[in-house]
Amino acid sequence: MSHTVRGIHHINFLVRDLDAAIQRYEALLGVPVTVREPLPRRGVDTARFRLGDTWLVLIQPTGAGIPADHLEQHGEGFFLMSLAVDDLEQSSQSLAGSPLQPGPIRHGVANWRIADLDRNQTFDAQLQLAEEDSQ
Amino acid sequence: MSHTVRGIHHINFLVRDLDAAIQRYEALLGVPVTVREPLPRRGVDTARFRLGDTWLVLIQPTGAGIPADHLEQHGEGFFLMSLAVDDLEQSSQSLAGSPLQPGPIRHGVANWRIADLDRNQTFDAQLQLAEEDSQ
Repeated sequence: MSHTVRGIHHINFLVRDLDAAIQRYEALLGVPVTVREPLPRRGVDTARFRLGDTWLVLIQPTGAGIPADHLEQHGEGFFLMSLAVDDLEQSSQSLAGSPLQPGPIRHGVANWRIADLDRNQTFDAQLQLAEEDSQ
Repeated sequence: MSHTVRGIHHINFLVRDLDAAIQRYEALLGVPVTVREPLPRRGVDTARFRLGDTWLVLIQPTGAGIPADHLEQHGEGFFLMSLAVDDLEQSSQSLAGSPLQPGPIRHGVANWRIADLDRNQTFDAQLQLAEEDSQ
């Protein structure tokens, strides 16, 4: 069994002030924000821009959680990159037992399903696998 | 005059050992590295993977320069994200005089032309604009 990453599903940047960041990124990208929505179980408010076949996501922590911890420790900027796969279970099984074994599957915004990777195994780049649930 | 970013052109991650990183990323992505090539004027060796309409680029500093300085100060991991535009001069003119004014145009690997943005204006995300020169 094997798996193939077919693209960058999304890339997340942490910001302290989502309103200000949306305004700045709209000017930079020349396109309006696509969707803004909170993800309470992750303790964040989010806004995303469609860029080609990828999403650029801005994240403001609004409560306790991993994003808030990361902002506290590292400040604003890059948070993680998510790699698009067609079948998250198959990819997880394919990588099981290797240093790249993904963590448990969790739900992101919209219909996104996520499995985090260990940054110690990817040269300190925080990566994850993502699939869009068609159901 | 205006401009539109039409995608993420590439995203760069710094690594200390490019050989080891290529091997690990080939296993993670399920695809072989596309191109490996040095960029001496930037003081780096590079390897890139095609992922959808984006490039994932691994960079190992091999000499003095901004990438080496960044690795020394921040360690491995995310380095920068490059936004694809159709006309770099027009985009630079469009953003001139704003906080998002790009720096001078420089050459990257292959036929890539680059203009860096000020990370203090993008919430500490290091960004740049990129165009592929058709000539």
